[in-house]
Amino acid sequence: MSVVRVTVIGLGLIGGSVAAATKRAMPGFPVRGVDSDGASVHYAREHGFIDEGATPERAEADGWFAGSPDDLVVLATPVHAAEAWLERLGAVGFSGIVTDVGSTKRAVVAAAALHGGGYRFVGGHPMAGSERSGVQAATPGLFDGAYYILTPTDATDMDAYRDVHAFVTSLGARVISVDAAAHDDAVAVVSHVPHVAAAALVDLASARARDAGADLLRLAAGGFKDMTRIASGSPELWTGICLDNAPALAAGLEGLEKVLAEFRTAVAARDEQAVHAWLAAAADVRRALPAQWVPASTRLRELLVPVNDRPGVVGVVTTAASRAGCNIEDIEIDHQSEDRAVLRLVLTDEGDAAALMRDLQGRGFSPEIRQLESGES
Amino acid sequence: MSVVRVTVIGLGLIGGSVAAATKRAMPGFPVRGVDSDGASVHYAREHGFIDEGATPERAEADGWFAGSPDDLVVLATPVHAAEAWLERLGAVGFSGIVTDVGSTKRAVVAAAALHGGGYRFVGGHPMAGSERSGVQAATPGLFDGAYYILTPTDATDMDAYRDVHAFVTSLGARVISVDAAAHDDAVAVVSHVPHVAAAALVDLASARARDAGADLLRLAAGGFKDMTRIASGSPELWTGICLDNAPALAAGLEGLEKVLAEFRTAVAARDEQAVHAWLAAAADVRRALPAQWVPASTRLRELLVPVNDRPGVVGVVTTAASRAGCNIEDIEIDHQSEDRAVLRLVLTDEGDAAALMRDLQGRGFSPEIRQLESGES
Repeated sequence: MSVVRVTVIGLGLIGGSVAAATKRAMPGFPVRGVDSDGASVHYAREHGFIDEGATPERAEADGWFAGSPDDLVVLATPVHAAEAWLERLGAVGFSGIVTDVGSTKRAVVAAAALHGGGYRFVGGHPMAGSERSGVQAATPGLFDGAYYILTPTDATDMDAYRDVHAFVTSLGARVISVDAAAHDDAVAVVSHVPHVAAAALVDLASARARDAGADLLRLAAGGFKDMTRIASGSPELWTGICLDNAPALAAGLEGLEKVLAEFRTAVAARDEQAVHAWLAAAADVRRALPAQWVPASTRLRELLVPVNDRPGVVGVVTTAASRAGCNIEDIEIDHQSEDRAVLRLVLTDEGDAAALMRDLQGRGFSPEIRQLESGES
Repeated sequence: MSVVRVTVIGLGLIGGSVAAATKRAMPGFPVRGVDSDGASVHYAREHGFIDEGATPERAEADGWFAGSPDDLVVLATPVHAAEAWLERLGAVGFSGIVTDVGSTKRAVVAAAALHGGGYRFVGGHPMAGSERSGVQAATPGLFDGAYYILTPTDATDMDAYRDVHAFVTSLGARVISVDAAAHDDAVAVVSHVPHVAAAALVDLASARARDAGADLLRLAAGGFKDMTRIASGSPELWTGICLDNAPALAAGLEGLEKVLAEFRTAVAARDEQAVHAWLAAAADVRRALPAQWVPASTRLRELLVPVNDRPGVVGVVTTAASRAGCNIEDIEIDHQSEDRAVLRLVLTDEGDAAALMRDLQGRGFSPEIRQLESGES
């Protein structure tokens, strides 16, 4: 990683945790924090998450964004604010690398394409969180074992991707590389629809309790509490997420309503076979979900891909790897000439490497793969 | 408690845990276990949950149900099997106390009324569980701090209620007294609908993953996993629950679909104010849910209620206490004459005692209440 300094903008749960995890991984590494709330800046400095903190105005006046191409800015604000920052960083001529942590990616990726002549952008989304919010909830372990999505595009600079990948990996996370639009559709279903469903269950139960004039919610056992815990998340944050991803979320909710209505029909008809088959299928899928990422083994593979040294290539190769279920442990880029390079990916012993090879060959690449010996990487 | 022996029928997660919790509370107290699966009986005996175990046929042949009126039978089977047992216990002339642990109560209460000439029945439902099942998942701590619902009726014997209340309290649980039909409507909303919603979220995500040809579920963060954990519960068990409570469940699912559709409309219209207001209301309700029961203080109150010594009275008084949010720590019955008794309830320092007093007075009782001094109870 060629990054020499990190500036986290937005010291909330995620931004504070990014700063704290950076300090945990690399104690001497310079980390700056920017937040319009002085108390959050103070808290982050007191807890050693950052070395220096400032308001946005102060940071800009002090030339924090006039630095070297090896500065990394992490935008850890709501999506709308991140879009505004992408414009602002373009306007002040920031020349480093920018990444963000937004829960939806289409809009941010588009804003970066519009304003990012000077800086290089790689969109990101850590699949980690908490029902708590604010810097007081930040913890250096938030990303340990969590997936962290990066959304490279046709314009993504190879070295910037490598640096953000290395940075995110140092936080304890596992990178998945996905197209921004596919990301937004996917998180609607695995994150945003579930959040709304949790809130809907709470809403339904409290409405029924009001109707019955009884304290129905006292009857809620652990299952209800586990299911609805995420509904206590910040309404401000989630309003933004719901509206940013409105089309995908609305489609997902409609899908959920259909699934529920079908099952309701089977229940009302007392169709035991249909009820059982549906519950059994869901139980099978749920049981197959891993509790947390653990490496299948300590064996690693090395994938070498000769490429044209141009933007976009790293996105094609890394999203192909993620699609095949292969986890990228490390990326190196050997720039061989003006327009030729070799991408070296170190992969864990997961996923379908043969499918990845076929996929890359079908796209005109000539990849090579080999097993690494123990200790070699 | 005048009970001298407990026989648990059905050694699964709940039955095994009832037996184990009984042994934890009263190590020398005789506990028998009945299950048609020899391996479950063996496991329960090996782990000290029960002193003796038998198949249903063996237990009946050995006269286990010909015992004294101070025998307590706990039916810890699925609801349909419990109904069959209530008939069988009536046929063999069992004269003790029977309770059950079924997730729905209307059908079981009706079966007991039909067959319970010889025994005295109090319906029960522990609001505790696990996504695991079987006696191997049983643990003596399963009921610690959990609510445990009892459903007395007009026919419920006062002393039998007191004994079941004392028994359940000894398992570590907190009793709530509720009418059987109100119980079934309530658990549809706080337990059965949430289970179905969890399964529906898994179903939706796996269907979308198939459509996209991608491993979408890898993107599932902790929130999705927390929400859908209960969907991995036993499909056999949950098929029974869904069908037993079909009308209330179908009504609850329809309610959930409506809530989701309304929110979807607000999202599609990008109605920021409506989206925020709805999310904020759900977050407020969810945050107000206690993580687990904890006494508000160690202060206790004594409620004395002179009553006619007839069945049904204990149900009226205890459901009134639960409705007012008052937790009953202990019940004693002072039989003063053939037809007069005084119910003595020890209440924790929770709920609206004044509302309880008004409620009981409105029903023709003349209750007295006083604060107990520390150490007195």
